[in-house]
Amino acid sequence: MSKNIFFKRSDPFLISELFKSNQYEVDNKVFDIKTLSNASSQDISFLDSAKYREFAVSTNALCCLTTQELKKYLPKKCIPIVVKSVLFDLVKVTKKFYPSADLDYPDETLLKSEKSKYPSVKFSNNVLIGSNVEIGNNTTIGSNTIIEHNVSIGSNCVIGSQVVIKNSIIGNRVVVQDGCKIGLKGFGFIPIKGKNIRMPHIGKVILKDGVELGSNCTIDRGSIDDTMIGENTFLDNQVHMAHNVKIGNNCMIAGQVGFAGSSIIGDNVSIGGQAGISGHLKIGNNVKIGGGSGVVKNVKDNSIIMGYPADSLKNFIKDLKKND
Amino acid sequence: MSKNIFFKRSDPFLISELFKSNQYEVDNKVFDIKTLSNASSQDISFLDSAKYREFAVSTNALCCLTTQELKKYLPKKCIPIVVKSVLFDLVKVTKKFYPSADLDYPDETLLKSEKSKYPSVKFSNNVLIGSNVEIGNNTTIGSNTIIEHNVSIGSNCVIGSQVVIKNSIIGNRVVVQDGCKIGLKGFGFIPIKGKNIRMPHIGKVILKDGVELGSNCTIDRGSIDDTMIGENTFLDNQVHMAHNVKIGNNCMIAGQVGFAGSSIIGDNVSIGGQAGISGHLKIGNNVKIGGGSGVVKNVKDNSIIMGYPADSLKNFIKDLKKND
Amino acid sequence: MSKNIFFKRSDPFLISELFKSNQYEVDNKVFDIKTLSNASSQDISFLDSAKYREFAVSTNALCCLTTQELKKYLPKKCIPIVVKSVLFDLVKVTKKFYPSADLDYPDETLLKSEKSKYPSVKFSNNVLIGSNVEIGNNTTIGSNTIIEHNVSIGSNCVIGSQVVIKNSIIGNRVVVQDGCKIGLKGFGFIPIKGKNIRMPHIGKVILKDGVELGSNCTIDRGSIDDTMIGENTFLDNQVHMAHNVKIGNNCMIAGQVGFAGSSIIGDNVSIGGQAGISGHLKIGNNVKIGGGSGVVKNVKDNSIIMGYPADSLKNFIKDLKKND
Repeated sequence: MSKNIFFKRSDPFLISELFKSNQYEVDNKVFDIKTLSNASSQDISFLDSAKYREFAVSTNALCCLTTQELKKYLPKKCIPIVVKSVLFDLVKVTKKFYPSADLDYPDETLLKSEKSKYPSVKFSNNVLIGSNVEIGNNTTIGSNTIIEHNVSIGSNCVIGSQVVIKNSIIGNRVVVQDGCKIGLKGFGFIPIKGKNIRMPHIGKVILKDGVELGSNCTIDRGSIDDTMIGENTFLDNQVHMAHNVKIGNNCMIAGQVGFAGSSIIGDNVSIGGQAGISGHLKIGNNVKIGGGSGVVKNVKDNSIIMGYPADSLKNFIKDLKKND
Repeated sequence: MSKNIFFKRSDPFLISELFKSNQYEVDNKVFDIKTLSNASSQDISFLDSAKYREFAVSTNALCCLTTQELKKYLPKKCIPIVVKSVLFDLVKVTKKFYPSADLDYPDETLLKSEKSKYPSVKFSNNVLIGSNVEIGNNTTIGSNTIIEHNVSIGSNCVIGSQVVIKNSIIGNRVVVQDGCKIGLKGFGFIPIKGKNIRMPHIGKVILKDGVELGSNCTIDRGSIDDTMIGENTFLDNQVHMAHNVKIGNNCMIAGQVGFAGSSIIGDNVSIGGQAGISGHLKIGNNVKIGGGSGVVKNVKDNSIIMGYPADSLKNFIKDLKKND
Repeated sequence: MSKNIFFKRSDPFLISELFKSNQYEVDNKVFDIKTLSNASSQDISFLDSAKYREFAVSTNALCCLTTQELKKYLPKKCIPIVVKSVLFDLVKVTKKFYPSADLDYPDETLLKSEKSKYPSVKFSNNVLIGSNVEIGNNTTIGSNTIIEHNVSIGSNCVIGSQVVIKNSIIGNRVVVQDGCKIGLKGFGFIPIKGKNIRMPHIGKVILKDGVELGSNCTIDRGSIDDTMIGENTFLDNQVHMAHNVKIGNNCMIAGQVGFAGSSIIGDNVSIGGQAGISGHLKIGNNVKIGGGSGVVKNVKDNSIIMGYPADSLKNFIKDLKKND
């Protein structure tokens, strides 16, 4: 079972401790909360939409938060925990396991960088480094940048000035330009009048080898899952990536593009400036999305789309002519 | 008369000192410049649009900059100062009262935070604090953050790293993520060829209890009025709020949304990512605005709108079908 | 021949050293790489589109990267270097002249600002200044701001906090609000699967007298050319300007506007919030562009345009009515 290196987890709970009102035939210990595909036989997971049934049928989870209607997708060995609102109970259970992941409290382990601890790293002025940070050979870190505890950065990276990186695993040859904020908690909460209940964000940000981020980008970490950018994908300035978004390899994302939560983008995708991608979508490989588009539906491989809402380029041009 | 704690005000002027070319029956002393609803009987105010006539009729202002056409909305006790361009004279008068509010000069009172002065506050590294800053119990402030003079922050707040806060009053349990810039002067000036004349910004930013701001947001302070975010309202990353915008309670504002100046947003409003709200609009309560929308008209309570320009969701879908 | 003060240039190459496979009648020394209009008789230039033929016919360049089809636009004295992909060879040649301009490595000359070196400048806390920086009288620099080597800033400027400025020439009375990142390399590269090849950015950012930038703007430097903002032009918060963009005098650019690379904007242009301007366009003088517009074509002087894609305001309103 892989350990969460960024957030302190509570001791395991019995199922009956987590859900007191219910009675379960088996009352095993639950060690962690994970997505359907990542969960082991000691973990709890969650299924809140038929969209994710393919992950449900093959999950190894010990038990799973779900609804009366969706529980049929779970394998026999997985104990269904039927609740009214999966999201609400997900928040409650996640908070039990990770009591301090709902907010980004300042890292108390930060210290001014010491050349002696990282002899092969080039630090500019006033760099702050948390405990257990790993940085590869020949990486440079710009002035006033903050790298919080347990972050790992590969070799030959160029990290700019006034950057914040937390809860992130960063590969080799990664470039992060000035002012980026990486690994902060995302915009996830249950809006209950008078008091929003925040979703703990126990995921991380993964930037694969060769990724480049332009200046002032904001890349939120995952909630239960991770946020990820694939090899050799370049983002321009002021791009916003919400929690759990995954972008494939060799993509080009132009300035001020925004990704709502949990969308999955394929390989070799190019997205023009200021386009927006709604949440929970699947964008195929080799897709081209025109600047300013608003994408609200899944997109097949090799599509060229444009418009608000985005449609095939052919239809977009046809509609323009109709209006002439 | 409430004092402006952020900007130094000149001594009072006689009406005849402010407007030398005009003759007024009464020549009282004017102490301050305020909005129609905030002005007391010692203040000057301004009325530049019939839109604000409801505030005009009940103003307590001693005198008011206005036009020949609009002066009829002012109560008898209020002396009308009729001018050609209300905005131009407003700038001139505001500059007389507040000579240094047109630009954000660096705060010369900033010093490295001292635990001894704020024993119940947790400061991370290199925090800079101006004079007369108040911070409540159990609030944490991230590294490299700057809190300028006279700012007040409540208790149990979590302020991130690389944040700047000036000219702001912040409640309890407020969360400000990394990189936010709060309380800077807004984009207000009179474009005269070859030399723009800047509107002094003597207002502040008010964040009520339980507000949350995502990373790299920019919240400008008010010009004469204040910029305000109501209780329990959450903003995602990279949101831009211009001067004088007021957002109600329990709203959800997604990433990269932009608000032009002086719009007023009700309670329980949700706005999707990258939507834009034009200036001087009134958006009702319980309104839902789709992502990417461009809102250019007032919106009634309980509306669901989408599109560019935004229309009712019903019409938006009808138009889409028409183009199929 | 004007010197590039920001990037170290290699010694001159013979044409035959740059292009080994080709044979040229004359084999002169090439000293630098420049745009068609800036090149002297010792420089190499490039012509990759008929769009730029007016600059080609009058270039003073010694030689020019171009294609079989475009070489006819070059004057007789200019040696055409015919290649398959002008952009690809441009990257190769630029890298030979400027081996370290493809990435923004941290400035190793940064030191904490010293009052003694700049007696007429007002520094706030923790300002970092590189070597050979020039700052004019009565300019103020906010806390935690970084000004890298060889940058020049005029007099009576107000530079905010947490700003980064590199590779830039800044005039008098310029205002830069908190969090701006100015002069970083742009989003230019040749996407080759598995390994993007970065375009060196050897240009700079020029901000003329009286320019104002709102908070958290990102202004990339030019690639071969410069990025420029004309006198008295004001930008609001979170504006993104890509490499080589040129904005004229007395323009008003509202919040969150984005400019793709190499577009040229005239004088007295106003652009509403969140509008996007595509790359390589020419926008005339006195143009008004509505908020949220997506501009994809050249725009004539005195036009008023709006929409996505942007059209004349008249057509935009006609189309709206058609959909009613």
